[in-house]
Amino acid sequence: MAANAKTAIQPTREADFPQWYQQVIKAADLAENSPVRGCMVIKPWGYTLWENMQRILDAEFKRTGHENAYFPLFIPKSYIEKEAKHVEGFAKECAVVTHSRLVSDGEGGLKPGSELEEPLIVRPTSETIIGEVYSNWVQSYRDLPILINQWANVVRWEMRTRMFLRTAEFLWQEGHTVHGTAQEAIEETLQMIRVYADFAENTMAMPVHVGEKTEGERFPGAVNTYSIEAMMQDGKALQAGTSHFLGQNFAKSSGIQFTSQEGVEEFAWTTSWGVSTRLVGGLIMTHSDDDGLVLPPKLAPKQIVIIPVIPNEDNRSSVLEYCEQLKRELEEHRYQDAPLKVQLDSRDMRGGEKAWHWVKKGVPVRLEVGPRDVAAGKVVLYRRDKGPKDKQFLERAEMLGTIVETLSSIQNALFEKASSYRTDQTREISDVGEFESFFKGEGAGFAVAYWAGDSTLEDELSKSHKTTVRCLLMDDFEEGQCVFTGKKTRKKAILAKAY
Amino acid sequence: MAANAKTAIQPTREADFPQWYQQVIKAADLAENSPVRGCMVIKPWGYTLWENMQRILDAEFKRTGHENAYFPLFIPKSYIEKEAKHVEGFAKECAVVTHSRLVSDGEGGLKPGSELEEPLIVRPTSETIIGEVYSNWVQSYRDLPILINQWANVVRWEMRTRMFLRTAEFLWQEGHTVHGTAQEAIEETLQMIRVYADFAENTMAMPVHVGEKTEGERFPGAVNTYSIEAMMQDGKALQAGTSHFLGQNFAKSSGIQFTSQEGVEEFAWTTSWGVSTRLVGGLIMTHSDDDGLVLPPKLAPKQIVIIPVIPNEDNRSSVLEYCEQLKRELEEHRYQDAPLKVQLDSRDMRGGEKAWHWVKKGVPVRLEVGPRDVAAGKVVLYRRDKGPKDKQFLERAEMLGTIVETLSSIQNALFEKASSYRTDQTREISDVGEFESFFKGEGAGFAVAYWAGDSTLEDELSKSHKTTVRCLLMDDFEEGQCVFTGKKTRKKAILAKAY
Repeated sequence: MAANAKTAIQPTREADFPQWYQQVIKAADLAENSPVRGCMVIKPWGYTLWENMQRILDAEFKRTGHENAYFPLFIPKSYIEKEAKHVEGFAKECAVVTHSRLVSDGEGGLKPGSELEEPLIVRPTSETIIGEVYSNWVQSYRDLPILINQWANVVRWEMRTRMFLRTAEFLWQEGHTVHGTAQEAIEETLQMIRVYADFAENTMAMPVHVGEKTEGERFPGAVNTYSIEAMMQDGKALQAGTSHFLGQNFAKSSGIQFTSQEGVEEFAWTTSWGVSTRLVGGLIMTHSDDDGLVLPPKLAPKQIVIIPVIPNEDNRSSVLEYCEQLKRELEEHRYQDAPLKVQLDSRDMRGGEKAWHWVKKGVPVRLEVGPRDVAAGKVVLYRRDKGPKDKQFLERAEMLGTIVETLSSIQNALFEKASSYRTDQTREISDVGEFESFFKGEGAGFAVAYWAGDSTLEDELSKSHKTTVRCLLMDDFEEGQCVFTGKKTRKKAILAKAY
Repeated sequence: MAANAKTAIQPTREADFPQWYQQVIKAADLAENSPVRGCMVIKPWGYTLWENMQRILDAEFKRTGHENAYFPLFIPKSYIEKEAKHVEGFAKECAVVTHSRLVSDGEGGLKPGSELEEPLIVRPTSETIIGEVYSNWVQSYRDLPILINQWANVVRWEMRTRMFLRTAEFLWQEGHTVHGTAQEAIEETLQMIRVYADFAENTMAMPVHVGEKTEGERFPGAVNTYSIEAMMQDGKALQAGTSHFLGQNFAKSSGIQFTSQEGVEEFAWTTSWGVSTRLVGGLIMTHSDDDGLVLPPKLAPKQIVIIPVIPNEDNRSSVLEYCEQLKRELEEHRYQDAPLKVQLDSRDMRGGEKAWHWVKKGVPVRLEVGPRDVAAGKVVLYRRDKGPKDKQFLERAEMLGTIVETLSSIQNALFEKASSYRTDQTREISDVGEFESFFKGEGAGFAVAYWAGDSTLEDELSKSHKTTVRCLLMDDFEEGQCVFTGKKTRKKAILAKAY
């Protein structure tokens, strides 16, 4: 768009990225802050994105041998206390249930009554309660592996919240598995981080780096944490999914023991892994533009919207009929093993307003049909990933014959665009000066650098440049020198400012 | 089975129905009590039943124009207080969050810290919080109707809990709709109770009565409550779903107001409706027998299990190959718009033990294949709805050609069996003596009687015979006399002992 063109979203990404993010959410009607501190209301358009993510992820979890189950919302305080690092990580921000009823306060109102013997924590994550349950399920090597996932809500009493990215309550899935050997548990951990990476790239069209977290960024109680890290359009990193190898830490604190094939009593090896509604925030910040939300066809609640353009009432019935027929024919086509999701918007509303409504909601393809198109058997096709004035005049049959290809092409184009943005904003760093100038002030992006630092160094960089080590890349590189310590290493880190 | 035959479940239904119920759940590995008081762990086999219910119900909700959304887990105390009857109904049993962190108790443990300004209630139901949110969404008649459903967990601090039927935390869906007229809201309320009735009968194979609740049994704050009532195999009623016409009660307490087409400011009319994991309990108690769980094919996690019978190792590969081929061919067939769900159980385990494993899990069809079947191109088919010794020797092609019909036939047979049980246990009651002898001692079943009683009478019957008015049937009957009061009425009630 021209530099001075008015955009549907104000401010623009460049002017104020955080504010732009809030406005995109509002304009697309995805979610809003609720009257309960830190909790959001996920509105239908936003919730459908999560449902679509759930459906695809759930199929992948099942394909890789997992089943779903459900464990309690509440965790007794004593369970949380069992794993020392874990409690340290979660005690500071958790919702504590202390009473089991409301009683009269004597002034016409109510107050908490019936104090519980032991306070209950609303789960911030379920390792401790699930570990306790698993300790009863596991007796022998024959009971292993346990491969279970749970779709659930969790609560972390965050002080600064931001819709989808960081909310007091959020929706997620948490996989919890138990294995007989370290090797098998590590393979599970790596398998699941790869499932997440595939999902991010192939479904969300969001390129990610897979890597290992440094000690300071590990899940509290984990031996290793792997994450996928995506780059948002402000150059900041978003941790979009994690998979933890928990070693025997939780097995020991929960007593998950089994008799091995050789008759030896051993502690089991566990993993956990999760993604959350934060992915919706990542989706928004990866693809959306200054006209609002942009959705990849694989996740869009509606992939195509048909807008009848009715200049005068004489044309109404013929245009509507044409559009309805078009909708039916489109719905006979399949994309990703499901019929196309098509919306016909015949509301009584100005055409421009209506078109912008769907632009802001991110629908991948918009078809406009006026009386002349009806007469000529044509449609006008707009792709949401292109500029708002970029349109194609197509024969109706041609459009129908290529629509699935068009959706694939949009899906791919979004991935390519995000990938090339990431490439542009990524710098191989070979000395401290380069690092400092890259992150100076508002500078952001991914710095890739040989890394052999420790937690102290990470703290320093966090203070001086607001950057953290997002992850250590999985590859072993040719030996080089750590940019900060000069030590020799084969490991490269991604450093970035992060959400 | 013969009177003295040993059953897989002990005790039998007749000997001790509540204990039988617990044992069926245990033997099928559906769920277990958790270490958290009143909360259950739903295990994969049980959770899959709920997932299957969700999938079918969700499609129905969408077909009838609803969308899903998500609202906060927590409700500020002041919101709960707004609707007088509502708070009375829920204040006595709710989980109250009073603190937002755990801090050191000075003795090496932790205690609640950071007291909240206002206590939060873990939602027992969401009318008040959703009403508050809706009050911001609704300004004009153009914003109506709002047709939203939420899948969520809720908490009611029940003192006596029972797996699936009554637990402190349970999973459910709650629909919350807003309308411009009473008429439209009433139609919505009735539409949804019919959706539940269709689901109960056509998917769960569980016959239900649709009716209206009396004042004493209404949802706290509702104008009318409609329910579906099913009969369990002990003759007791299970309320399996409810739909509430809330009038303007919650609109007034939450301030849901709109400007009508005529420019008048009016309060809106709301409804809510829900079913929960209690349905799983209903499913169990409707169909299961003294050998364990019996599942209708439309909901079974696996519809068919194939058991290779391998008397000696020489046969292993040919039998397994035959079974694997059978599985692939079965999976090419579709039932209810999805490929058949087939399990091949090739575990190393005694044949009898393995067969009983699947009997207890309620799989509708069991196929056994031994070397002689392989040689002859046959299979042995057992239907779970028939006696354990009732088997069919079938040509493989014949079995494949009729398997979908067989599943339909099982689905129908379960409904017929439950219906005829209900008919047998239902009595038209025409005087008080009949009523008293019907419910004397352990007597149970449905008493259908002309009813013109009030809450006082209901309380008396509840004390004297442990019976309640389950619902007033929807039909208007020929005028008759209330069995208890002698008043003339066209209404008949179902009276029963209930869960």
